[in-house]
Amino acid sequence: MKNTILLLFAFSICSVTWSQGNKKSEIDAKISELLSKMTLEEKVGQMTQITVTLFEDPKKPGYFDPAKLKQGIQDYHIGSILNVPNPGAPTIQRWQETLTAIANETNKTRLKIPILYGIDAIHGASYTTGATLFPQQIGLAATFNTELVKRGAEISAYETRASSIPWIFSPDLDFPRNPAWSRMWESFGEDAYLSSKMAVALVDGFEGKNVGSKYSVASCMKHYIGYGSTYTGKDRTPSIIPERLLRQYDLTIYEAAIKAGAKSVMVSSGEINGTPVHASKHLITDILKNELGFSGVVITDWKDIIYLNTRHKVAQTKRDAVRIAIMAGIDMSMVPEEFSFYTDLIDLVQKGEVPMSRIDDAVTRILRMKFELNLFQNTVANLKDYPKFGSPEHIQEAYKTAAESITLLKNNNAVLPLNKNEKILVTGATANSMKYLNGGWSYTWQGDKSDTYAVDKFTILEAFQNKIGKENVLYTPGADLEIKNEAEIQKAVDLAKNASKIVLCLGEKNYTETPGDISNIFMSSSQIKLALALSKLNKPIILVLNEGRPRLISDFEDKMNAVIQCYLPGNEGARALADIIYGDVNPSGRLPYNYPRYPNSLEKYNRKYTESISEGEQNDDAKYEKSYLPQYEFGTGLSYTTFTYLNLKIDKSEINSNEEINVSVEVTNSGKKAGKESVLLYLSDNFASITPEFKALKRFEKISLEPNETKTVKFTLNQKDLQFVNEDLKWISEKGTFTIQVSNLKKDFALK
Amino acid sequence: MKNTILLLFAFSICSVTWSQGNKKSEIDAKISELLSKMTLEEKVGQMTQITVTLFEDPKKPGYFDPAKLKQGIQDYHIGSILNVPNPGAPTIQRWQETLTAIANETNKTRLKIPILYGIDAIHGASYTTGATLFPQQIGLAATFNTELVKRGAEISAYETRASSIPWIFSPDLDFPRNPAWSRMWESFGEDAYLSSKMAVALVDGFEGKNVGSKYSVASCMKHYIGYGSTYTGKDRTPSIIPERLLRQYDLTIYEAAIKAGAKSVMVSSGEINGTPVHASKHLITDILKNELGFSGVVITDWKDIIYLNTRHKVAQTKRDAVRIAIMAGIDMSMVPEEFSFYTDLIDLVQKGEVPMSRIDDAVTRILRMKFELNLFQNTVANLKDYPKFGSPEHIQEAYKTAAESITLLKNNNAVLPLNKNEKILVTGATANSMKYLNGGWSYTWQGDKSDTYAVDKFTILEAFQNKIGKENVLYTPGADLEIKNEAEIQKAVDLAKNASKIVLCLGEKNYTETPGDISNIFMSSSQIKLALALSKLNKPIILVLNEGRPRLISDFEDKMNAVIQCYLPGNEGARALADIIYGDVNPSGRLPYNYPRYPNSLEKYNRKYTESISEGEQNDDAKYEKSYLPQYEFGTGLSYTTFTYLNLKIDKSEINSNEEINVSVEVTNSGKKAGKESVLLYLSDNFASITPEFKALKRFEKISLEPNETKTVKFTLNQKDLQFVNEDLKWISEKGTFTIQVSNLKKDFALK
Repeated sequence: MKNTILLLFAFSICSVTWSQGNKKSEIDAKISELLSKMTLEEKVGQMTQITVTLFEDPKKPGYFDPAKLKQGIQDYHIGSILNVPNPGAPTIQRWQETLTAIANETNKTRLKIPILYGIDAIHGASYTTGATLFPQQIGLAATFNTELVKRGAEISAYETRASSIPWIFSPDLDFPRNPAWSRMWESFGEDAYLSSKMAVALVDGFEGKNVGSKYSVASCMKHYIGYGSTYTGKDRTPSIIPERLLRQYDLTIYEAAIKAGAKSVMVSSGEINGTPVHASKHLITDILKNELGFSGVVITDWKDIIYLNTRHKVAQTKRDAVRIAIMAGIDMSMVPEEFSFYTDLIDLVQKGEVPMSRIDDAVTRILRMKFELNLFQNTVANLKDYPKFGSPEHIQEAYKTAAESITLLKNNNAVLPLNKNEKILVTGATANSMKYLNGGWSYTWQGDKSDTYAVDKFTILEAFQNKIGKENVLYTPGADLEIKNEAEIQKAVDLAKNASKIVLCLGEKNYTETPGDISNIFMSSSQIKLALALSKLNKPIILVLNEGRPRLISDFEDKMNAVIQCYLPGNEGARALADIIYGDVNPSGRLPYNYPRYPNSLEKYNRKYTESISEGEQNDDAKYEKSYLPQYEFGTGLSYTTFTYLNLKIDKSEINSNEEINVSVEVTNSGKKAGKESVLLYLSDNFASITPEFKALKRFEKISLEPNETKTVKFTLNQKDLQFVNEDLKWISEKGTFTIQVSNLKKDFALK
Repeated sequence: MKNTILLLFAFSICSVTWSQGNKKSEIDAKISELLSKMTLEEKVGQMTQITVTLFEDPKKPGYFDPAKLKQGIQDYHIGSILNVPNPGAPTIQRWQETLTAIANETNKTRLKIPILYGIDAIHGASYTTGATLFPQQIGLAATFNTELVKRGAEISAYETRASSIPWIFSPDLDFPRNPAWSRMWESFGEDAYLSSKMAVALVDGFEGKNVGSKYSVASCMKHYIGYGSTYTGKDRTPSIIPERLLRQYDLTIYEAAIKAGAKSVMVSSGEINGTPVHASKHLITDILKNELGFSGVVITDWKDIIYLNTRHKVAQTKRDAVRIAIMAGIDMSMVPEEFSFYTDLIDLVQKGEVPMSRIDDAVTRILRMKFELNLFQNTVANLKDYPKFGSPEHIQEAYKTAAESITLLKNNNAVLPLNKNEKILVTGATANSMKYLNGGWSYTWQGDKSDTYAVDKFTILEAFQNKIGKENVLYTPGADLEIKNEAEIQKAVDLAKNASKIVLCLGEKNYTETPGDISNIFMSSSQIKLALALSKLNKPIILVLNEGRPRLISDFEDKMNAVIQCYLPGNEGARALADIIYGDVNPSGRLPYNYPRYPNSLEKYNRKYTESISEGEQNDDAKYEKSYLPQYEFGTGLSYTTFTYLNLKIDKSEINSNEEINVSVEVTNSGKKAGKESVLLYLSDNFASITPEFKALKRFEKISLEPNETKTVKFTLNQKDLQFVNEDLKWISEKGTFTIQVSNLKKDFALK
C-alpha cells in the first residue's frame, strides 16, 4: 500500500511541478536565502500563531493597541495571526484597515516577512459583514454536485480575499462515525468517497489554478485525523480507530485533498487509541509528511499543544508538551493567547532537545506558503478589485447550492408541492431566525448573531410570507427549542385550526464544538410534544428539519405527511426551501448519511452483513435487512418527478487485475416535471478476507432531465475501486465476484 | 510485554505441573498412544461436536433414535455432544439415562473414546430440573465477594456433574463496551480487574483442585475475544478494538483465567476490525496458544465455521470456511446440525490443504481434556454420590449470593427499610414471574419456561406476600413490558391510593443473544408511563429494577424515593430482595458498571480526562466532571448503616521500579446496623505517554463490620499495577506521580 500511495502522490507532485514551472524552484531559492538569514528567535516566531484580539486595545474593541502589536511582531517575531477582531464580522473596509496595520508593523521588521492571517471562514467569508453565506458542508455534500460546490468555493475565496485574508481553515475532512457529533454538519457526512470528491471540489475552488492570485486562498484540511469519530459523539473526546480503518476511510479523503494541492492541514484535538494526534509522530510525520508526501504547513488546533499537558496528560509540563508536539511534526502552534510556545521552543532548541533541522523544516513550509500565496507582494486587498463581493451573482450561486442541497425525504400522497392559494400555518422553534439556517461559524463562533448581521435575509417564515403573501401565512413559534411550554403549543394547535396545512419547522440551536455536545440524539422533547399535539388535528403536516445532525424523529415521523431536510442551508436557504415547497424548484438533494431511527442503532449504510442479520442463518438480502432499519437511508432524496433506470450494462463480465470495467445505465425522466437526479453507483465485494461492506458508493453523477428525456450515464471502475485495506495495512483486491448496483438494478462481474 | 506474559505464564504452568505431578506425563503418554492408533476419520470425528437433538427420535422427544446415535458415534466418530434433549431441562435421572445411552454407544467403538458432553450451564446447572439457580454473572460481580462466588461455582459444578455432564460453557469473560449489549448480564460488567478476579473465582470453583473429580467440571472461557464490544451493542455485530486495548483490558481477563487452569475456550462469533475471530490465526494461535501458552481446547460457537461463509463472507465456500477456521487454530467445531465439517475437513487433509500436524494438535488437546476429566473411568454420574443436589444447603448459598448482589442505588430520606405493618402496592411488569428473575439460559435458551420449572420458587410478589402477609400486599401488573395499556396503568394508580408505599418492579423480558437486541436503551415506554403515572400520587415509590442491562430511567428517576438494582438474581432472588427491603438483610452489592443517564453517553467510569471536560481548559476535578454524568457510577452501592474511612496510609511516598507499595485504610461502621462493605482501591496514573484513565480499580475486599467496629484493610500494589500497554503493545510503567483513592481519601506517590 505504501508503494501505491507514494506512486499516486509522486504523480500529483509532478503535475503541480509542470504547471507551476520555474516558480517552484524560484520559491525554493527564495526560502533558502531567507532562512539562512534568520535567527533562532525569528524562526520560532514564524511558527507562532497568536489571536488578533490579544493585540487589541481593551478600550477600543476591534482596534489595535500599537504597543501590543509591536511586541508580538517585533519582539516575538510571530509568523501568523488568526481570528476576528471584536465585536466580530468586520466589513471589508475594516478588514483592510486591520490587515494594513499588521502589514505596516511587519514592514518595520528586519526581514519584512509578511504575517499569514488565517480565519475560520467555512461557508463563505463567514466572518465578514455582507459576505455571501452558502450552505454548511453537510448541505454541500447533499447536492452531490461537485461543479456547483467548486463554484461556491471560488466565490468564498474571492470574498475572503476581498476581506484581505489569504488563508481559511476549510475544508473539513472529518469522517464522523457517530452522527450525534456536534460537528457532523461541518463534514460531508458518512461516506469517504463522497467526502473525497467534495474535498477536492472545495480545494480546487479555494486555491484555483494559482493560489497566489488575488482571488484564491490557501485551504486548510482539518482535523487530521480521526477527530470526527469519537465514541460518544462528544467533541474532543477519544476516538478508537484501528489503523486499518483509518487507511480504508479517513486517510483516503486527505489523500485526495493533498493530491488536489491543499496547502495546509490542522491537526485533530482528539486522541486515537490513547495517543493524542498532536503527539503522534506516526500520524503526522511518518504517514502525512513522509508516506503521503504532504509538503505544506501542519498547524495545531486551538491551544492543543498546552492541552497535551492539561487535558490529555501525556506531557508533565507545558514545555514538554511543546517538545512532544514539535517532534511529532507540528509546524505552527495555535496557542494563541500567550507566548509560552515561543519561549519554551527556543529553550528546547538551545538545550538540544529539539534539533534545528526540525525547526528549519517547519519554517521552510511556512515560508513556502507565504511565497506561494504571494504575500510578499499581495498583502492587503485593493477593494476595487472585488466588485462582486456580496453581489446578486454570488447570492444566486448560494441560492442554487441551497436549492440543490435541500432533501425531500418523504412525500406521502404527493402532499408537496403545496398550492399557493392555501392558508398555511408556519410554526416551530426554527421557523423565524437566521441563526438556525446558518448554524455555528457564522459572524461569530457559535453563530448567535446571524439575526443581526443577516437582518436583510429571509427566515423560513419570511420566505413563506414573501412567496404567498402574509395574509396566507399564520405563524406562532409553538415550541421553544428546549423549554416545554404547554401554552405555546396550545396556541399553535388553536391557530392550526384556521389553516389547511401545517409547515412544522423543527431542529437545533446554532452551535459548534463542545457547546453543541448532546447525550441524547432524539429531537428535543419540547419539539416532539409540539409535533404530537399538531398531529392530533389530522391536518397534513410538512415537517421541515433545520438541523446540523439527524435528531431522531421516530416518535412522530409516521404522523408527518412530508419531511424535508434543510440541513444548515445558509442565508439563502429559506428562499430555496419555499421555492421547493411550492414546486418552483424540483428538489434534488440526497441524504449524505443514514438518518437513524433509534438512539443505539447508529449503523452506517455501508455496514457489514452481520449488522443486518436478525436471527439464524439468512442468505437473502430481504432478511439481512431485518434489524437494519434507519429512518432514511444514505442517498435518500425524492423528486416531484420520477426517474426510471433501465439497461444497466457492463462491458466485461470478467476482468483481469489490470483491467477497468465500463458501466452504463439509462435514466429516463418518466414524470411530468423537469428534474435533477444524482445517479449513484454502489459496489459490493461478495467475499473478501476482511469482512466486506454490504455495499459502498464508488461513483456518482448529477444529471438534469426534461420530462421523457433519457440520458445514458457512463462510469468507469478501476482496480483501486475493487481494493480494500487488509490486516497488513496494504491495499489489495482478491479474486471473486463483485456486484454493481445502480438504483434497483444489479450486475455481477468477476475479478480473475 | 511478550516477555512478561510468557514469564507469568511459565510460572503458572509450572505450578500446575508441580501440583499434578506425574499425572500430566502419564496423561501425555496415554494421549500419544491413543493418537497413534487413530485413523484420520477418527481424529476429525473427535473434532466434531453435534447437538443432542440431531440424534433424537422425532416421535419420542428427548429419546434417542438408536440408528441416528449409532451413525454419529460409529460412522462419524464424533467426539463431543452438546445441548439439551427435548423438551428441555431433564431431571438428573433423565440426564443419567441420556449419558448412559451415549456411553453405551461409544463403548461399541473401536477405541472406546468417551464423548465429551458440554452444556450452557451458566448460573447453576441451569438445564436440569430442580437444580440450584444462582444470580447471573452480572450479579456475581456486584457481590464483590470472590469467596462467595467461588463457593457458588463449586455447587454449580457439583449439580452439573450430578447431571452426568462434565463440561460447561462458563465463565463468560466478555468485556462489554456498550451496556446495551444483549449479553451484558452474562459478563462481570465494565471493569477488567473485577472481571479477572471473578473469572478466577469461577474457574477455581468449577474445576476444583482436580478437575477429574466427580464434583468438578471443566470450564470454558467465552467468547474469545472482543465479542462483548460491538459498536451498537447488537449481538454478533462487528467490534472495533485496536490490539492495544485488547491487551490492556480484554486479554488480561483471559490471562487470569488461563493461569487459574481453565480447560477450554469458546471463540467469539464476532469480528474485530474486519476479521472474524474464527478466522484469526493471530488471535487464536499466535496470541492465545503461543503467547499465553493456552494448552486446552479451542471450540467454535454455534455454526460459526459455516458463518465464515454465509454471514461474514470471508470464505467463498463452506469447505474453505473449514480450512480457514482450522488453520486459525480451532480445535473443535460446533457446527452441530450437520456433518459437513467432518466431510470437508477429511477432504482438506487428504488434499494437503490442512496438515496432519494441525489435526494432531487439536486432537491432542481434546484427548487431554477427556483424560483430565477422567471420562474414560467416570463417564456417567452415580446419583447416590450427589445427595446435596438442589438441597437446602445449596439453596441457602444461592440466596446468600443474591442477597450480596442486590444493590441499593438510592434511598432518599431513608425510606428503606420498609415497615412490615404498612400496606404496600406491588406493581410492575416484572413483579410476578420467575422468568425475569432468571433471565435467559434458564431451563431453556431464552429462559421462557422458568415459571413452569421454578413454580415452587417465589416471584417478587410472592416473596412480599410471604414476608408481610397477603393482606398487606396489593397487586396489579400495571404495565406490560412492551404494550402500552392505559387501563392497566389506571388500575395501578387506583389501587395505589389504598397503599402507603409503592414497590414498582420494572425491567426487561427474559432474553439472550440476538433475540435480546435493542436499538433504544431507554426503559420501555409502557413502563415509563406507569412510573410517571404513579409518581403523580406523591406516595413514596421504591423502584425495583430487574434487568440484564441498565435500561435508562432518567425520565422518571428523580420521582423515585428509592432504587434497588436486582440484576437477574435467580431463583432465590425475590426472597433476598424482600429481606433487604424490610431490613432483615443489609444490602451490600455494588454496581459493576456505569448506569447511563442518556442514550448517547455511555462512558465508562475509567474514562479519559478529555471525556469529562465540558469547555475550555479546566484543571480541577470538579470541572472535569461536568459533562460526565452517569445516573449511577460504577461502584455505587448504599447500605442501611454508614461506613467511615480514615487514615489512608502508604508505606512509601516514592518507589523504585522493583518495589511494591503497601496501603492501609481504616474502615469503621459508624451507623447502627451490622453491614458488609466492599472496600475499593482506585489508582490514577497522573501523566503517561498513552492518555491515562481517570482512575482504575486495582484492588477490592469485602468486609463485615458490627456497629462501631473498625477494621484496617490492607492492600499491596505491585509494579504491574502501575503499567499500561503502550503503542508498541508492551506493558510498561513510566516515572511520575500516581494517586491512590479509597472512598474519598487520596494519597500520592511517585515512581522514580
